[in-house]
Formats: sequence, C-alpha cells, structure tokens
Amino acid sequence: MSQLPAQMTVVAISKPGGPEVLVPETRPVPKPGPGEILIKVQAAGVNRPDVAQRSGSYPPPPGASDLPGLEVAGEVVALGEGATRHKPGDRVMSLVAGGGYAQYCIAQDAQAMAVPPSLSINEAGAIPETLMTVWHNVFERGALAAGETLLIHGGSSGIGTMAIQLAKAFGARVIVTVGSQDKANACTKLGADVAINYKTQDFVAETRKATADAGANLILDMVGGDYIERNYDAAAIDGRVVQIAFLGGAKATVNFAKLMVKRLRHTGSTLRPRSNVDKAAMVRAIETNVMPLLREGRVKPLMDSTFPLEKAADAHRRMETSAHIGKIVLTV
Amino acid sequence: MSQLPAQMTVVAISKPGGPEVLVPETRPVPKPGPGEILIKVQAAGVNRPDVAQRSGSYPPPPGASDLPGLEVAGEVVALGEGATRHKPGDRVMSLVAGGGYAQYCIAQDAQAMAVPPSLSINEAGAIPETLMTVWHNVFERGALAAGETLLIHGGSSGIGTMAIQLAKAFGARVIVTVGSQDKANACTKLGADVAINYKTQDFVAETRKATADAGANLILDMVGGDYIERNYDAAAIDGRVVQIAFLGGAKATVNFAKLMVKRLRHTGSTLRPRSNVDKAAMVRAIETNVMPLLREGRVKPLMDSTFPLEKAADAHRRMETSAHIGKIVLTV
Repeated sequence: MSQLPAQMTVVAISKPGGPEVLVPETRPVPKPGPGEILIKVQAAGVNRPDVAQRSGSYPPPPGASDLPGLEVAGEVVALGEGATRHKPGDRVMSLVAGGGYAQYCIAQDAQAMAVPPSLSINEAGAIPETLMTVWHNVFERGALAAGETLLIHGGSSGIGTMAIQLAKAFGARVIVTVGSQDKANACTKLGADVAINYKTQDFVAETRKATADAGANLILDMVGGDYIERNYDAAAIDGRVVQIAFLGGAKATVNFAKLMVKRLRHTGSTLRPRSNVDKAAMVRAIETNVMPLLREGRVKPLMDSTFPLEKAADAHRRMETSAHIGKIVLTV
Repeated sequence: MSQLPAQMTVVAISKPGGPEVLVPETRPVPKPGPGEILIKVQAAGVNRPDVAQRSGSYPPPPGASDLPGLEVAGEVVALGEGATRHKPGDRVMSLVAGGGYAQYCIAQDAQAMAVPPSLSINEAGAIPETLMTVWHNVFERGALAAGETLLIHGGSSGIGTMAIQLAKAFGARVIVTVGSQDKANACTKLGADVAINYKTQDFVAETRKATADAGANLILDMVGGDYIERNYDAAAIDGRVVQIAFLGGAKATVNFAKLMVKRLRHTGSTLRPRSNVDKAAMVRAIETNVMPLLREGRVKPLMDSTFPLEKAADAHRRMETSAHIGKIVLTV
C-alpha cells in the first residue's frame, strides 16, 4: 500500500446531456467513514443507470456521490473504522453508491467481495451490479427453480449474459430474445436453449412453441412498453414477470384479466435505492451460492469491450448503440 | 335420510341475458361419482360470477354443471365411492363446481366442511366461495401479516365483509372503500379501522393519511380499471396488490415504473378454474386456521338478504344494484 495522493482523476457529469458531457476532473481522494473501505479502482463497470444518470433522468440518491459508476474492482488501500472483512492490499470487487468512474472509490466493507483467482480484474469490475441484479431478481424475487423455463429479454446485455449462465447453472431452461444472429450465437454459446430474434420473430409464439404451449415460468424484462401484455401472454400459469428497467417505456395499456386468470405475479425492483442492510444480505447470499461457480470458472462475465477511464464518453456511446454483447468496462 | 326423488327443481339460465332469464326447471337428481357427495341444498350463496355466467360473459368450465351456483349448505343424502369424510345426515357447506341453484347438488367430499353449531344453515350457505376467495387471496397469495395494513375495495360486499373480519382476527389493520355512509357503518361495525367513501374522497390520499404516508401493505381489489395505477400509488414499499375481479374493467393504462420502484407484487386469481387438489388444500388450511374462529362466533358472514330459490332473478337484481351489504342467499 503506497502513500495515498490528495487528489485523483475522475470522470464527472458536467451537465445533463449526451456522452460528451462526461469529462475528466480532479477531485480530492475520499476518506472511508465507519464501515467503509477505500478502493484504488482498476476497473469500473458501465451500466444502463449510468447512462440514465448522465442524461439527467435518474438523479443519484441523497448522500451518494454525484459521479457515475455503480461497480468497481481494485485494491483495498484504506479502511474506515470497524471495517474488518478486507485489508489493505486485498483484491476486491464491490457495488458502490456512485463514484465508480474514478481512481479511488468508497465502498461498504460489507458489500465488497474478494475477487476469486479465476477472474481478471477487468472481469471483476463487470460483476457486482450485474450479479446482484440478476441474483435478486431472478432467484430471490423471481424464485426461479430447477426445471423451470426462464425467458430473458435483452439476452446479450450484461444482465442477460449473466442471467443465462446462472439460470443454466441452477438447472433452468433458458429462452432469450435478441436483435441479431451474432447476439443469438453469443447467447447459445453461453448455454441459452433457445434464442428468438425479436426483429423477425414473435417472442410470444416462439416461447409457447418452445414450451409445448405452457409458457415461461419466469420472465426477466428490461423493455416494458408493449412487451408487458405480451409477457403476460408468454407466461405460464402461476408465472412471474420481473421488471428491472423500461427501455421501451414504463407506460402501457394492458389487459389485466390475463394476469388474474393465469395467477401471474408481476413485480420488479431497482438495486440502487436498497438499504445497505439489504445489499449486504444479497452479497452474503451471493458469496454462498454463486462464488463457488465463479471460482470454478463455470460462470464469468461475458466481456464486450474495455475503454480507458478518460474515454468514458465512448463507452457510453457504445452502450447507447446497443451494439455491445456483454459488459463494457472502464480501465483505470 | 329419506328416499331420494328422481327429479328436482332447479333454476337454470334459459339463455344469456338479464335476471329474467333465470327460470325454474325440472332436472334429474344427480348421482355422486367417486369422491363426491350429494347434498340436499337448504341454502345457496349468490356470487358475482353467477351474474357473469348468467349474462354470458363467464361460461362454466368443461365438465361443470350448466346451472349457476358455486356454494351451498345442506344435508348429506348420498355418498359416492370412496367418500369418507362425511356421512348421510351431516350438515355440510361446500364450494361446488356449479349447480348450486337446485334442490340437490354434487360436491367433492374433500371440499365439503362440517357446519359448526355457531352458524345457521343460511349463514353456512354464504361461507364457502367467499371464505375460500378471501383466505387464498388475502393470506396465501397476499401473505397478509399481523401488524400490516390491508386496503379492501368493495368493503361492504360479501367478500369485503368476510375479509374485514378475518384480517382483524389475524391482527392486521383494515381500511375499506365503500359507496355510502350506511356501508361505511356496516364495515366499521365489523372491525374496519377506516372507511373511505370513494364517491366523496380520494382513496389514495386517505390511505396515505391513515398510514402516516407509508401506504397499504396489501390491497384486495375487485374494481380494476383506473383503480390499478391508483392502487400502486396507495401501496407501501414491498406492497402486494391482489386482483379478484374487474367490476370497473380489466383494461387500463398504467405507469409500471411505480410497480418497479416500490417493488410491488401485482397478482390475482379466480377460484373456479383451480384443480380439485388445490381447492381441497385450501379447505384443509381453512379448517385449521379459520374454523376455530367460526366456531367461536368471532367470524360469521354478514347477511344482506335471503330469497326463495325460485326468486333467484330478484336476488340477482339486488346484487346488480350494488345496494346490498354482505351476502345474498337463496333458500331452498
């Protein structure tokens, strides 16, 4: 552990707008408070909420850093009072409340996880936000069970590619929707049983066909809009629909008789506003249930591309084209 | 047990239409098959699905009687093969697959419950469909816990008046919506903590006011339509909305971001299409959890009115005015 500098380079949101508003700035290196650790960031994952925050539609919660970046991996360089799970020099990955686009970042000691030897530091930077989102929504909230069928919209996204691997590792059948043959190939290579091209196929008809007309037991949806009623059509009796974003719009006109007659459960969640207690509980569940799979190399993030921190604007541009397959990571 | 007649009087749906299409007919007395019992009907509850079936919008499921009537109470007069829970002469109440508007009706042995001495036979005829609907949707599906707040739309309906009593008996706080002061009084007399007149008050604002802005943990809704998004507004973080009917329409335009951000669970169910296995499981849970409350007189159906079987049309007219408070029962 070297002497800590007083200043660091970060990428800030100079004003709400397009990717070009992401600009390097110099800020003081933060000091970890009680229960916190300071991480020297080596890799910072790029996520959809970062894009929403940049464009001004998703302000950071009270008390959080104004800098974008919700997940990082790197080396522990300082401990706050009462932080006992990690020590300086440890390689960790962690969800953070914001501020990941920086040379140094504060994390909760309880939310940081040791990086297993099976993962590079760039891969580790692609893990926390994605894995916690998938774990909570697919397994805790969606209660996916072995033998069930999971339909994932956006199968080639960071979330989608992680969800495919985890669902397969836990014995489920996986159907994905994607927008191109390349993306379909990437998903089936990761284990997806069926890939539906939503540009040329009707996902409701294809899901029913792939399930002997029974429908999907669980649907992980980041699209919303007119997908919502179609999800009800594609779901099995007693099925669950879990909403994690609304890339197609949050407002929709829906026939709710379909939800009632099939006894569906439509729910959803966002990770960022959860309490530190809730987040730590998810991390404990992941350390127990998923860390062994990461350690054995059975699950690892599919990496799309890396960009140097100062090129964060280019990373956002790539995400907004939706050309990416898997995770985009900033290297520091 | 007297000799069974060959013929019986029933009330049939002569064709889809208004209450006047309900007409007395003579039909053969049915014979109980394996696992079934024959009940000499003394009281038959009237329910909203009967009205929907009569008007042609809710056809009976395959294999069910074409006669209306989903719950009866009376005397066991014959047993099918393997029916061992009840014996001729027993006073029972039961959900039935249809055919309740008749002098004799087939029930599943496993779904019939002994009538406790605390209930008149007319009260018993008002129990099965209502109690199973409330039990399943409020406690099994909605997972209402002691200390939570339940918002019931249609508080003075048969379902509503049963839900008030059960929720209070299990330690919840109860808010109801009603359309008149008389109905509000009936609900508070049964234990409701707050009654909101939806004609003069905004149920979202009143629910928030009554819960220190936290919202209701569970909402039991039979209205739908523009209540759906308002239910999301009135619900607490991690709240549940359970849909059991759509008296205000099943189609609605909704902002689903509210569901995601609050981590709501929107679900629903209808009782009639459930399997006999599912229905028997609900009856067992009710015998364990609710029968003691019925026996002690702590819970009993609120009776609106009784009509002789042949006046079933008048019973439907009363239900369709929504003037009733509590249950309407046909006496045979």
